[in-house]
Amino acid sequence: MSEAYVHGYHPRANERLQDQAAALVDLLHSDTSYPPGSMVLEAGCGVGAQTVTLAQRSPDAQFTSIDVSADSLAEAQRAADAAGLTNVQFRQADIFALPFAPESFDHVFVCFVLEHLSRPVDALAILSTLLRPGGTMTVIEGDHGSTYFHPDSRAAHMAIQCQVQLQRLAGGNALIGRQLYPLMVEAGLEAVHVSPRMVYVDSSKPGLVDGFTRKTFTAMIEGVRESAIEAGMTDPEAFDAGVRDLYRTAAADGVFCYTFFKGVGRRG
Amino acid sequence: MSEAYVHGYHPRANERLQDQAAALVDLLHSDTSYPPGSMVLEAGCGVGAQTVTLAQRSPDAQFTSIDVSADSLAEAQRAADAAGLTNVQFRQADIFALPFAPESFDHVFVCFVLEHLSRPVDALAILSTLLRPGGTMTVIEGDHGSTYFHPDSRAAHMAIQCQVQLQRLAGGNALIGRQLYPLMVEAGLEAVHVSPRMVYVDSSKPGLVDGFTRKTFTAMIEGVRESAIEAGMTDPEAFDAGVRDLYRTAAADGVFCYTFFKGVGRRG
Repeated sequence: MSEAYVHGYHPRANERLQDQAAALVDLLHSDTSYPPGSMVLEAGCGVGAQTVTLAQRSPDAQFTSIDVSADSLAEAQRAADAAGLTNVQFRQADIFALPFAPESFDHVFVCFVLEHLSRPVDALAILSTLLRPGGTMTVIEGDHGSTYFHPDSRAAHMAIQCQVQLQRLAGGNALIGRQLYPLMVEAGLEAVHVSPRMVYVDSSKPGLVDGFTRKTFTAMIEGVRESAIEAGMTDPEAFDAGVRDLYRTAAADGVFCYTFFKGVGRRG
Repeated sequence: MSEAYVHGYHPRANERLQDQAAALVDLLHSDTSYPPGSMVLEAGCGVGAQTVTLAQRSPDAQFTSIDVSADSLAEAQRAADAAGLTNVQFRQADIFALPFAPESFDHVFVCFVLEHLSRPVDALAILSTLLRPGGTMTVIEGDHGSTYFHPDSRAAHMAIQCQVQLQRLAGGNALIGRQLYPLMVEAGLEAVHVSPRMVYVDSSKPGLVDGFTRKTFTAMIEGVRESAIEAGMTDPEAFDAGVRDLYRTAAADGVFCYTFFKGVGRRG
């Protein structure tokens, strides 16, 4: 079951991630660019949803983007080719068994990865050893507990809670965004600075209503329906009522709030 | 009971509001300043926690600051005198029975007031009639449902929920921040723009840990202890455990998040 819902492994989820990447590019990435000649490791690139943005924003840096899934990497490679990128190398590798020498990289970038790991501090500590002294680690994660909306709805919160519980059962943590600061400090990074990136959506922003409230967040929750029912966390009626109430927040008088967190730290 | 907890009416609460005002001045007010000669109504000025900031940032605008409480106004007057303000007139008045002619003001400013009103849209509509066509309405409110933290704690959320319930029983709405956009639109304002102002606190920001997490938010929740117990919403042990867990979020590995909302609209 743990793999049944994890996002990034199914065609529909992939479309969602591509949509999300497009809508949130500026919010998440506008302050990340690497100097010419930098060697950058993107750990856990998935289907390349962030890779294209990253590499386009730093055209003279060299990226090595790894993922544990060969299928995801193949899709990431197609996305990179379609974008005409020439500064990214893809490589299949596990964060906990990396084929790189210590201090091989100037910078490491990790986005939407720690939420899936049962040992996030260990992962950060391992990735840190790949940084040269003074190199930076950038980490971006969401936090489903940052979700609130109008009209408020207990059913909607319950449906979200199903996703949180499923991710926990799979060894991950859907509430990890708020923890970036202590996690990065515990991993030994220095000068850690975390900033929230809040997505605020009301009907004056129809692009976000559709691109984020409907097609990113609510679609993601909808995507765990079968797993949540199968796990006995909910019944179809209750879950569907929650999803309906999430779509309701996309109406003219609705409001939807979600926050991503971005942390940057330095290897001492 | 409704008046027993409402903030702004007791010496300790007043100190808290003054602290809060100091810590959050930039976050909430940095983008508000009124042109020379503007006539500005501050509706519900309380003890003047925002008045001094407002008037100092727009030294050549003329402020009329009203409140329903004579005691609060007296304190606001003292604060204004201490700050040497000469551009503020205080006046005792009820938002629902205002002694001003229509279109008397260029701008209206309302901060931490709607949360206490059972008819927030009516209040905004009434205040709108005091604006000249093209004049602006600025509204700032918090939202206690935007609160989350690390370590997470059910007891802490329950303690916060006591404050939310007490405010609801008193006719108010502690979750009103997220609703500013639909409320302002419903009140007939045009070109409404709402922006969230998130307070993110980790231990790299000791001023906010002390000034916001401890002395503003947690102190406010602590302040409803007796009312919540008296109302049968909690027992002393459960409430105190929640407050303890809120203080725990101020530790070196703790994180605290809260969001204010600021809306600006125009009278058509």
